[in-house]
Amino acid sequence: MTQTPIRFSFLPRRIVSCWYPASRKHFSSTPSTLRAVLQESRNKKSVMATLNTKAGQAVDRAVLDSMLRRRLFYTPSFEIYGGVSGLYDYGPPGCAVLNNIVETWRKHFVLEEDMLEVDCTMLTPEEVLKTSGHVEKFADWMCKDPKTGEIFRADHLVEEMLEARLKGDMEARGQKIEVDTEKEAKKKKKAKSEAIKLDDAVVKDYEEVLAQIDNFDGPQLEQIIAKYDIRNPVTGGNVLPPVSFNLMFQTSIGPSSNMPGYLRPETAQGQFLNFQKLLEFNQQAMPFASASIGKSFRNEISPRAGLLRVREFLMAEIEHFVDPEGGKKHARFDEVKDIELILLNRDVQLSGSTKTETMTVGKAVEIGLVDNETLGYFLARIQLFLLKIGVDSTKVRFRQHMANEMAHYACDCWDAELLTSYGWIECVGCADRSAYDLNVHKNKTGAPLVVRETRAEPLKVEEWQIDLDKKKFGPRFKKDGKTVEAAIDALSQDLREKLALDLEKSGKVEVDVAGVASGKVELEKDIITIEKRTRVENVREYTPNVIEPSFGIGRILYSLMEHVYWYREGDEARGLLSFPPVIAPTKVLLVPLSSNPAFRPLVQQLTTKLRRLGISSRVDDSSASIGKRYARNDELGTPFGVTVDFQSVKDSTITLRDRDSTKQVRASEDEILQALKSLVEGEETWEDVRKRLPEFTGQEVD
Amino acid sequence: MTQTPIRFSFLPRRIVSCWYPASRKHFSSTPSTLRAVLQESRNKKSVMATLNTKAGQAVDRAVLDSMLRRRLFYTPSFEIYGGVSGLYDYGPPGCAVLNNIVETWRKHFVLEEDMLEVDCTMLTPEEVLKTSGHVEKFADWMCKDPKTGEIFRADHLVEEMLEARLKGDMEARGQKIEVDTEKEAKKKKKAKSEAIKLDDAVVKDYEEVLAQIDNFDGPQLEQIIAKYDIRNPVTGGNVLPPVSFNLMFQTSIGPSSNMPGYLRPETAQGQFLNFQKLLEFNQQAMPFASASIGKSFRNEISPRAGLLRVREFLMAEIEHFVDPEGGKKHARFDEVKDIELILLNRDVQLSGSTKTETMTVGKAVEIGLVDNETLGYFLARIQLFLLKIGVDSTKVRFRQHMANEMAHYACDCWDAELLTSYGWIECVGCADRSAYDLNVHKNKTGAPLVVRETRAEPLKVEEWQIDLDKKKFGPRFKKDGKTVEAAIDALSQDLREKLALDLEKSGKVEVDVAGVASGKVELEKDIITIEKRTRVENVREYTPNVIEPSFGIGRILYSLMEHVYWYREGDEARGLLSFPPVIAPTKVLLVPLSSNPAFRPLVQQLTTKLRRLGISSRVDDSSASIGKRYARNDELGTPFGVTVDFQSVKDSTITLRDRDSTKQVRASEDEILQALKSLVEGEETWEDVRKRLPEFTGQEVD
Repeated sequence: MTQTPIRFSFLPRRIVSCWYPASRKHFSSTPSTLRAVLQESRNKKSVMATLNTKAGQAVDRAVLDSMLRRRLFYTPSFEIYGGVSGLYDYGPPGCAVLNNIVETWRKHFVLEEDMLEVDCTMLTPEEVLKTSGHVEKFADWMCKDPKTGEIFRADHLVEEMLEARLKGDMEARGQKIEVDTEKEAKKKKKAKSEAIKLDDAVVKDYEEVLAQIDNFDGPQLEQIIAKYDIRNPVTGGNVLPPVSFNLMFQTSIGPSSNMPGYLRPETAQGQFLNFQKLLEFNQQAMPFASASIGKSFRNEISPRAGLLRVREFLMAEIEHFVDPEGGKKHARFDEVKDIELILLNRDVQLSGSTKTETMTVGKAVEIGLVDNETLGYFLARIQLFLLKIGVDSTKVRFRQHMANEMAHYACDCWDAELLTSYGWIECVGCADRSAYDLNVHKNKTGAPLVVRETRAEPLKVEEWQIDLDKKKFGPRFKKDGKTVEAAIDALSQDLREKLALDLEKSGKVEVDVAGVASGKVELEKDIITIEKRTRVENVREYTPNVIEPSFGIGRILYSLMEHVYWYREGDEARGLLSFPPVIAPTKVLLVPLSSNPAFRPLVQQLTTKLRRLGISSRVDDSSASIGKRYARNDELGTPFGVTVDFQSVKDSTITLRDRDSTKQVRASEDEILQALKSLVEGEETWEDVRKRLPEFTGQEVD
Repeated sequence: MTQTPIRFSFLPRRIVSCWYPASRKHFSSTPSTLRAVLQESRNKKSVMATLNTKAGQAVDRAVLDSMLRRRLFYTPSFEIYGGVSGLYDYGPPGCAVLNNIVETWRKHFVLEEDMLEVDCTMLTPEEVLKTSGHVEKFADWMCKDPKTGEIFRADHLVEEMLEARLKGDMEARGQKIEVDTEKEAKKKKKAKSEAIKLDDAVVKDYEEVLAQIDNFDGPQLEQIIAKYDIRNPVTGGNVLPPVSFNLMFQTSIGPSSNMPGYLRPETAQGQFLNFQKLLEFNQQAMPFASASIGKSFRNEISPRAGLLRVREFLMAEIEHFVDPEGGKKHARFDEVKDIELILLNRDVQLSGSTKTETMTVGKAVEIGLVDNETLGYFLARIQLFLLKIGVDSTKVRFRQHMANEMAHYACDCWDAELLTSYGWIECVGCADRSAYDLNVHKNKTGAPLVVRETRAEPLKVEEWQIDLDKKKFGPRFKKDGKTVEAAIDALSQDLREKLALDLEKSGKVEVDVAGVASGKVELEKDIITIEKRTRVENVREYTPNVIEPSFGIGRILYSLMEHVYWYREGDEARGLLSFPPVIAPTKVLLVPLSSNPAFRPLVQQLTTKLRRLGISSRVDDSSASIGKRYARNDELGTPFGVTVDFQSVKDSTITLRDRDSTKQVRASEDEILQALKSLVEGEETWEDVRKRLPEFTGQEVD
């Protein structure tokens, strides 16, 4: 079984025709990375146990998930109609965090770097996606159980069955492992593991298949299914051979059915198609970047893993267009060159390890590990962005694609991966895609998706030029004239040189012209001249290369929520989400001590003043205790709380509480508002504020 | 031909089954409004001529449009593939304006009023849209030319042909009118008008048909097409009878084809489906509003009119849930009650006039013209929003829906219409939709989309209650028991009262029970008791009503661009877009006098400082003259310009230019930056700044 080179990606991707499908990994796994982790986990500890909160507590995904749903960060779409797998709605706090991430992204990338943001349609005619390769290649393999009608993603099915058998084997060997009972397995529609010992050779076989699971094509999966007797895990029935299933949602544009279309699988195509106009808008100046934020779609066969594998998702993509000549330098590279990244390079992965090394981006480019400055610049900027929104710096790494993961045209590609309870998740891709995308659309449509620039020094090209005596040529070839001329035009410089010698020697040349006469045409020197001459080029024309940082915003949001989640020691039931203020759904909770009407004017006034400062706030004047009200908002990630009590009514002092430390200070309304402004704008930290304002220790009671 | 009551709307709409389709007007026209305007225009002057810029110049739509495309505010999608009608991309300035409008909307509505913003999926399973009525009713009538395969929207076809004939008639009567030549008509694929005089009676007939064009259903359109011999305007061929065409884009969710779905035609459904969770999130407090910003889709048969009729568009919708009892008061109504609105009420429209009256919203609610405070509150808030983003206050009106336009369940509905070169365009709808939407989903799914509140005073209900002696009842009716019991439970209070009398009189009663015995069942007083008793209700359960302000952001953007467009007298070729700073794509243009490197450090420093102030800027250091560079940015709507010249290098003073007046002031860098901040944040006007800083009159040269 040969390993087919594929292009991996968590996000819908462009594919090139000579490569096997747009198959994706389940998450960021690669044979040598996640597999290695799984292997480890199978033998030693679970991946989940390795994911700790910043307070060092193990993340219990079920507890976190239940909190996120209860507080309406997200919810299954159409739940009252039974729901649709892979579709989720964001409720108020989730939607606010999403908006804040997008706004931060826009400031960090679009505004900071003068990118040209565009908003292109999601509806896309088929022809465009044929050119990009998606119609042919953006597919997964699926198997149908002919009896039950159930459909499985073929690689998932193989994986599930073999993993269940390996589990059973470990159990039989007396290793402690969590095993689904038959009843539980049926409920989850998953394969039950039975404690059956396998031959060592079989275990090895299975592990080898699992290690390569993402690399198999349909016929290979079919063989594996037959060889290892893979069946419907619940009923035990046989499944049909895998068939290819295109992952784009198809529809029809307009009233007649003659314009098939799809929902875009990525936002990139619209940017490529508009390249020429964007270049003109940019007054022909290179390099420049376009950017786009919007929904994309992929019709997953059987989505699992919650917010990480969904059918409709928000992306933010940058296409940075750069001259392929001159080493793809970046004018602002110096600003980031000292930033350290945790890198997992391809050679390490090839050796079967997942050992990372920490290196400045300057060094990584210098030693050629990262292909060029522009790519390196974006890796650093991606990391800065992730840290800005609150990602845990110890849970980010950049993994380089291995040669067999990349499309043949790509120079280099790195994924920013975030560590979650699902393992390392690919959240941002950053690829140097060379001139591929612009070229395919240019070739298909003839649109000049190129840059033309006046050369500082005119270029002189020595070349063999051919002249034809049209007066004699025309009558001689009549209707074949154009075909013959085209064949001559297409002659390479080498051939021309050879023909020039022939012509000088024998006074005639023979040229291959398919479809004319015997396929060869003879030309005498009275009709053809071949001479070496100098051509002067004043204009240089080139197709820019594109560096593409591509962000899965929903995945980033989910991973971020795992990173900022923790709970106070001894109080596991009360979770906290320590979003940084810029990302938190609401910045300030206003808490009147009780529902006493005496507090109302002050609360109202604070609301108005905060709004004027551009700080979002919410009032919780419910009858719950102050402690409970704070705890409720800790779950929502509200970083600050302001309490209005009887003292406030007397002297206009209010208290300010920090979510993470639960420490409070007390000062005048103006001082607190000023502190809030600088906290929210990131000019001061809580520590700064705590030091300069008097501590307060009353109030917070459960 | 009877007039079928329809529900009008520019936006995809929910429809109720007993009303004829989701037919929409072509724009905001109604028989008595736009028709009246068209009528006028046919006789006197063109609508376009009536649209003036704020400088009093006639808007030439072709000139404006060409500027908007040239400056990449928008561009046809997939143009290098030939384009797809009804799909447009927004380029950098259009995208920035769109983002700014959305951001302003979010602040004005969501943050200001603590609305619960949600982000729901566009993919929607068929079942949901069956319940909402869209699957059955969201359709237009289309006609096919069997020879050419062309498809026409039936009402558009009739309209076009009759208007062409009326034009021809006017021409024949010697009235000057712009007439398409045959060649032009073919190019536009439009009916050519020939100068043929019509009988007066025929003219009257045609005008009557045109006045009602939006009200005809398929069979009626078929009659009209036959009666007036309507044909393919280009080939003259006959068309087939109209058939209904659903305007939703259909797709299939998941790998098997058993889950048909659609792209949502509006964002509202997701909000309704999540009502229960949102209410819980809001700690059961009423009233509250949800909001959603996102793309919706409608598969137009033959989109025309550029950005005003597109297949994919951005909407912002609010669903304000309110208790139907208590007159739908609004707590903040007092804040807006003195705001004056220009109202076009339904009675005026019924009388065939388009005469508006100006009235405070307080008065409009008081006299019952606007149904309730909550609706009135939103009308005022909608106007405040439109003015904030730069809409011309003289080109806004609120048009009340006539009875035949509204769904039967709606209490009242007003559209905010903006005057454009296409006539009055419906840009925001604001309807009181009663409890319709929550009820249909509740009835379909059984989900409790209701509010339950503890009554302050328990409600005592006097009612006739029926008791059955189960011991006798069961054996008597056996398998029919449940049917009989259900029939008894369903008896109305009136019937119960009558039966109680019967029972007292004759000792037995007769109850109708369909499907049991002879359809009647006799019950004696040993088996049934009917008594008047008092029931105490501690909890009140009700389905909230919903007030729905629904914004077509793309339409607002286009109308706004027409409103802020003008040109300097004598310089028609140079347009300006006078966006208010909050909406302008870029706030400040930085213009070094020349490409002299001496200016670079200062420009760089200004860029950094502006970014830190949160003010977006762009540098134009091209070799064009300062005047030309400013003019280029006037077209983009950049409100302010800063020039760096040799004086600046010497003394750090810079100049600040106002786009609209072209006046300049000169002051120190700090003073100018401070002025910019207060201008952009709306704290000062240009007049304020001009008064307090020294004028500057040099530089601006062409």
